[in-house]
Amino acid sequence: VELRRDFHKYPEVGWTEFRTAAKVTEFLQRLDCAVVLGEAAVRPDEMMGVPAPASLEQHQQRAIAQGADPEIVAQMTGGLTGLWTDMKFGDGPLVALRFDLDANDLQEAQTDGHRPWRDGFASVNDGAMHACGHDGHAAVGLVLAKMLVQERQRFSGTVRLIFQPSEEGVRGAKAMVAAGAVDGVDTILGFHLGFQAGRPGLVIAGTEDFLATTKLNVWYKGQPAHAGAYPEQGKNALLAACTATLNLHAIARHSGGATRITVGKLHSGQGRNVIPADAYFELETRGVTSELDEYMLGEARRIIQAAGQMWDVSCRIEVAGGTKSGKSSPELAAQVADISRGVTGVSEVALTSSFGASEDYSHFMSVVQQQGGQGTYLQVGAALTSGHHTSTFDFDEAALSTAAEILLRTVWALLGINETPGR
Amino acid sequence: VELRRDFHKYPEVGWTEFRTAAKVTEFLQRLDCAVVLGEAAVRPDEMMGVPAPASLEQHQQRAIAQGADPEIVAQMTGGLTGLWTDMKFGDGPLVALRFDLDANDLQEAQTDGHRPWRDGFASVNDGAMHACGHDGHAAVGLVLAKMLVQERQRFSGTVRLIFQPSEEGVRGAKAMVAAGAVDGVDTILGFHLGFQAGRPGLVIAGTEDFLATTKLNVWYKGQPAHAGAYPEQGKNALLAACTATLNLHAIARHSGGATRITVGKLHSGQGRNVIPADAYFELETRGVTSELDEYMLGEARRIIQAAGQMWDVSCRIEVAGGTKSGKSSPELAAQVADISRGVTGVSEVALTSSFGASEDYSHFMSVVQQQGGQGTYLQVGAALTSGHHTSTFDFDEAALSTAAEILLRTVWALLGINETPGR
Amino acid sequence: VELRRDFHKYPEVGWTEFRTAAKVTEFLQRLDCAVVLGEAAVRPDEMMGVPAPASLEQHQQRAIAQGADPEIVAQMTGGLTGLWTDMKFGDGPLVALRFDLDANDLQEAQTDGHRPWRDGFASVNDGAMHACGHDGHAAVGLVLAKMLVQERQRFSGTVRLIFQPSEEGVRGAKAMVAAGAVDGVDTILGFHLGFQAGRPGLVIAGTEDFLATTKLNVWYKGQPAHAGAYPEQGKNALLAACTATLNLHAIARHSGGATRITVGKLHSGQGRNVIPADAYFELETRGVTSELDEYMLGEARRIIQAAGQMWDVSCRIEVAGGTKSGKSSPELAAQVADISRGVTGVSEVALTSSFGASEDYSHFMSVVQQQGGQGTYLQVGAALTSGHHTSTFDFDEAALSTAAEILLRTVWALLGINETPGR
Amino acid sequence: VELRRDFHKYPEVGWTEFRTAAKVTEFLQRLDCAVVLGEAAVRPDEMMGVPAPASLEQHQQRAIAQGADPEIVAQMTGGLTGLWTDMKFGDGPLVALRFDLDANDLQEAQTDGHRPWRDGFASVNDGAMHACGHDGHAAVGLVLAKMLVQERQRFSGTVRLIFQPSEEGVRGAKAMVAAGAVDGVDTILGFHLGFQAGRPGLVIAGTEDFLATTKLNVWYKGQPAHAGAYPEQGKNALLAACTATLNLHAIARHSGGATRITVGKLHSGQGRNVIPADAYFELETRGVTSELDEYMLGEARRIIQAAGQMWDVSCRIEVAGGTKSGKSSPELAAQVADISRGVTGVSEVALTSSFGASEDYSHFMSVVQQQGGQGTYLQVGAALTSGHHTSTFDFDEAALSTAAEILLRTVWALLGINETPGR
Repeated sequence: VELRRDFHKYPEVGWTEFRTAAKVTEFLQRLDCAVVLGEAAVRPDEMMGVPAPASLEQHQQRAIAQGADPEIVAQMTGGLTGLWTDMKFGDGPLVALRFDLDANDLQEAQTDGHRPWRDGFASVNDGAMHACGHDGHAAVGLVLAKMLVQERQRFSGTVRLIFQPSEEGVRGAKAMVAAGAVDGVDTILGFHLGFQAGRPGLVIAGTEDFLATTKLNVWYKGQPAHAGAYPEQGKNALLAACTATLNLHAIARHSGGATRITVGKLHSGQGRNVIPADAYFELETRGVTSELDEYMLGEARRIIQAAGQMWDVSCRIEVAGGTKSGKSSPELAAQVADISRGVTGVSEVALTSSFGASEDYSHFMSVVQQQGGQGTYLQVGAALTSGHHTSTFDFDEAALSTAAEILLRTVWALLGINETPGR
Repeated sequence: VELRRDFHKYPEVGWTEFRTAAKVTEFLQRLDCAVVLGEAAVRPDEMMGVPAPASLEQHQQRAIAQGADPEIVAQMTGGLTGLWTDMKFGDGPLVALRFDLDANDLQEAQTDGHRPWRDGFASVNDGAMHACGHDGHAAVGLVLAKMLVQERQRFSGTVRLIFQPSEEGVRGAKAMVAAGAVDGVDTILGFHLGFQAGRPGLVIAGTEDFLATTKLNVWYKGQPAHAGAYPEQGKNALLAACTATLNLHAIARHSGGATRITVGKLHSGQGRNVIPADAYFELETRGVTSELDEYMLGEARRIIQAAGQMWDVSCRIEVAGGTKSGKSSPELAAQVADISRGVTGVSEVALTSSFGASEDYSHFMSVVQQQGGQGTYLQVGAALTSGHHTSTFDFDEAALSTAAEILLRTVWALLGINETPGR
Repeated sequence: VELRRDFHKYPEVGWTEFRTAAKVTEFLQRLDCAVVLGEAAVRPDEMMGVPAPASLEQHQQRAIAQGADPEIVAQMTGGLTGLWTDMKFGDGPLVALRFDLDANDLQEAQTDGHRPWRDGFASVNDGAMHACGHDGHAAVGLVLAKMLVQERQRFSGTVRLIFQPSEEGVRGAKAMVAAGAVDGVDTILGFHLGFQAGRPGLVIAGTEDFLATTKLNVWYKGQPAHAGAYPEQGKNALLAACTATLNLHAIARHSGGATRITVGKLHSGQGRNVIPADAYFELETRGVTSELDEYMLGEARRIIQAAGQMWDVSCRIEVAGGTKSGKSSPELAAQVADISRGVTGVSEVALTSSFGASEDYSHFMSVVQQQGGQGTYLQVGAALTSGHHTSTFDFDEAALSTAAEILLRTVWALLGINETPGR
Repeated sequence: VELRRDFHKYPEVGWTEFRTAAKVTEFLQRLDCAVVLGEAAVRPDEMMGVPAPASLEQHQQRAIAQGADPEIVAQMTGGLTGLWTDMKFGDGPLVALRFDLDANDLQEAQTDGHRPWRDGFASVNDGAMHACGHDGHAAVGLVLAKMLVQERQRFSGTVRLIFQPSEEGVRGAKAMVAAGAVDGVDTILGFHLGFQAGRPGLVIAGTEDFLATTKLNVWYKGQPAHAGAYPEQGKNALLAACTATLNLHAIARHSGGATRITVGKLHSGQGRNVIPADAYFELETRGVTSELDEYMLGEARRIIQAAGQMWDVSCRIEVAGGTKSGKSSPELAAQVADISRGVTGVSEVALTSSFGASEDYSHFMSVVQQQGGQGTYLQVGAALTSGHHTSTFDFDEAALSTAAEILLRTVWALLGINETPGR
């Protein structure tokens, strides 16, 4: 609870988790764990949707001012805020657990009805808030590390704890996978507090239908002209963007399964009497399989480029995020379900649910499965004060120990020797 | 009148004027005029909107069956139905007159109220009708030739009589100009019965604001697919055509003057349960100057091609017609106005009018003016039974001699020696 | 085989099956079956996509000329070409079987490689062809009727044989259901030769994912105007249609399951120099449930009407076809699978398949299931010469007896008394 | 010069000209002129594009802090910053002169090359700058008032000096005309420094082709939804806005003359994974006559509303500005041209020019002309440092006295008695 509240008070959004990652690093190092950091943990050229260098540097300064170890922060320059540690307990399989670190772009409620504010651990960082529970996830990861160290004689094998940045916008997993985060992993586990498990006591042991997704930013650049005097001299970026938007939404549905496309934001033009010379828009594609997302992406790229050519404006497309589709391994999910039934505080266990959205975890999991390994994603029920991604979001911290215990018991089931780990 | 009724009975649409052009040729040859025919008169690679070879051949056969000289028709193979003759009367300037030969794609009325039907000279060619008066124009041209021969001693200089095919759709002038039809011409005259001069007795001596225009046919070719089972396998030509159509109409207005664009016809698709694999559409651009039409055309080509790329369909663009903008030379128009005032049957003379539409004549005229020559376009009033291009169109044939006399007197004013030609 | 070849030779498309339906009626009446005909069998105001009265009358005349009983044909005036008969064998449940009668809009191949042409039973009706096997379906229905009469002492209950017109375009079932065709039905069976069962010997006993669908025809009516002279006076129906088309394809995908929309055909305009005053287009919506199809239809109607208002053109929408979604009852399908395994010529039985397309049968079946009854749809394997709906389609007629036997045995399983029916 | 530099230092944008208008009022009152203020001068319900009340109040406070008379400012609450005075000099016609007061939304250059900055009279109000010369116009108006008072014995008639707010965006004239600003006016004069008269010494005495224009703001309001999980629950305001934009630009060109339409700015959506629930865009229509602008406006309103209906989003349209077309009275322009030729500093006089843009003055002038009066608009040449509406705009102040003298002489020509006024 203490760790969670500390993380909650100093929320940091994607690729700026300097303080959070440094605190995690310090904690692990105090447990004598060797931490893989910097470019060894995050491959720079695979990072997506990274803020400008000046902004990253400001966040680094802030992290130090808020108590982060300057030496550790220095190793994360450029937003390299992901890390992992391998805890080796003799021979045996490699089991990975993924925890996410980042906060949301949101102003936290400052009202007495909101416990973090009332109890003094509300966000002190303007415009950032832990409104999805990642503060809790990171805390569970650290407590689990501590318990594993304490119970080290009960295990044979290796436990890798992965702490990823930039889960929001599904931007961080790809660069960690590229750096080797799941190389050799036999089994991977991930979890979320709440979400589809909105009731306390409910555990969902597996998850299907993680949607693969790609996030694109698009810029058109044309030429301004006086709309009354010389309209023909303009190159109209807004007409290009409107044509692209309509046609993107008209991409054919696919017989292979569910797909999505949304242009969610569009900004164009300076004023009503000037031909709009610039347009910026953000879109995402999704597919219930990675192949379907690639189909959508291929169609989208072609349409975006052609719409630019149509109005003779230049076109720049940036991949701002993306992750693979996924589906928990059924046997592993069944095993986790069995384990969960015996855990204090668990009153109801579901084998699986259809996610219907995207989670950067599925990128890690699908790569592990492609390597021949297994993976599952748990949702651990918690009483919530309001929906995820809202300014009054909070959760019942009792769920933290439930989650930690399920994960510990699962690791024990996979790597355990001797008897069941005690509490 | 006899010539006009003969042409009226055997109407032939653009590039199929085999009988009409052969009859004109025979008439001129009987006057001992040397006729420039075939590729010497019409450059094949500049012909626009030509029917398929099989169709041309059928029309050649029909022309022969309807009395055309087979040898002359043979020289017109491929639709080379334009011709001219140079009548040389000693030294002096070169004055050209343009007459058009083609009929409209229209079924002529077969009712007693319609004089051509009542009097037995209505069209015998299904789907073709002289509904714009070109039958009268051609007749005036021949009568004028006869009068010029009779009065040959009164002239010094050369008169070139140009008989052009395919005025409808503005398709014929370009290929004749390319073959040299106006090379060396000092002055050019053209005329139309009726049109803006809908009242008998009215003559409009000059015309402004001929719109330059280009006619395009576009084909998109994609790939069909079952719309329910495999929509993603289709390449949708209709979506390309709809996007092109909307964006073509959105081309920016031009500060330099009036422009136009219209997609006037679109056909696409086989049935509702198949992704449409083909689309065909027809459009035209216009501009009050040739430069403005070129601006529209450039924009249109880019949009059409980009819309094809957008939906991954192949694109073919054909120029099906086009002509230049134009404006009568003011001094010449003033001279013609003065001449007209003295002609029998003329009660009212206007110096000029704004045309606001396209006429293939303006192609001839603008080239003559670029060469340093002069030109004007007359509209000779006639009582009309109904609007041009309608199935009950007919005109008071009294206007034919008025037109012939104005043209003769104008030629005399330009090339005449001795006294005024008598009648 | 003889019946099938007779139907094949005289193919009749949707709502014009006068000869086919009359022949079926005569055959049933000769078996002493009372036939429900005319408005009792087909409710006129629920018929969709009906040809013009003049065309229906011509087809009636042709049917009589080709040997249909004039009195029976007279009862079908207006296209009422559906019928059913109730064969009562004492007390017991009501089992219905559906057979379809209509041919396709297609010219049959006239080549020696095509058996119907070689053997003299190819279509004699221009532009119509049995290219989907409905000729075989109707023949199986009649042979089954004969067998049931022969074996009448072995059954207790009622068998209703439904012969439906206009399956193509899914236009006929609704009007028959409205007339009571499945009132009181406990179990319904339908079948198709070939289709997904393209291999001889294969039977698919049940079918899932019949797509609900709606077929719409849309007319926009605006106002023409000269595109060069007075473009502002037009009311542009083509711009309305293009806007509708693009936006229809942009209807949001639905989280509830697969949907489809296709504008498959669009015709607009008279020529390039006239603002297009009319547009006609055909579209279809689909959904894996009837609710999803209704969602698509609701969105589509709103978009179509708004696009008309946008360009100030009048809008008429006609429902030209439509059917409900469906899924075979699993227990019944399992029963049919068991039965099929024992039938001569059957070498492989699949329990179910995903259809992914639309069949008018699902309209009958889903209503029966809503009433608390059961239904399934069989696909009976046959060697095919080419794909359904192609001009060289033909099937191995050996499949006819296989189909008849499976249906007979299934009826016996449902209504049989005493021992298994012999052959 | 002193007045101009004072106004320049304290620029105020449309409807916030509290200090400028108060200073003008004080100046006039010191000359014993009665000033028409508040609702008597500006009709509130005809004001277009007015800032929010809180913003207006802030600007009022700032005006007072920058030296405006609080009592006068109080009378302008709500943005009523227009005023006029009638200077009565005995019987005779009513001659009005219009001066505009507002500054531009622009940050003034703060570089030594920019004289206002160097000499200490650059804008002290962030984001506002006199970059169109209205500071000079207002100064000329006051100096003219002083000269008229000094020379009062030379005139017979009434001079009305109108000081209008919100010329930029053509938002202010309508509300002043509605309050009676040009009631009974026989002759109206307006002027601009520079503009098409970019050369010192040049005076353009009349102006044609003021474009009528209307400025619209549009809001669509739909419903957000998670783009991955429940896309069908959204009501997509961006698709409505894109459809509107494309179709607005596709409004048919008009045979009656030049028209314009531009959607110049569009903002929509919150983020890429939410169906955009809101869209805001700004557009303008123009026409070379008021009728043509009304045609464009009528088409635009219908399209905007239909696009909203198409996507089931609510639609709000606000008229944010607009003015009528206009053309100087030729006789008056000729008179002004003659007068200008005799003025010191004038080296070249043009009778008229084609404006091709919009000026709120044309609203005043066209109403006066409709009442049977006359009007003209002068452009008085000045050396400019850079184009209008740029951050380094400045003009040679020598033009101020030239302008004042032309106006004074013109008033004398219209109302003068006795001899020519001396300087």
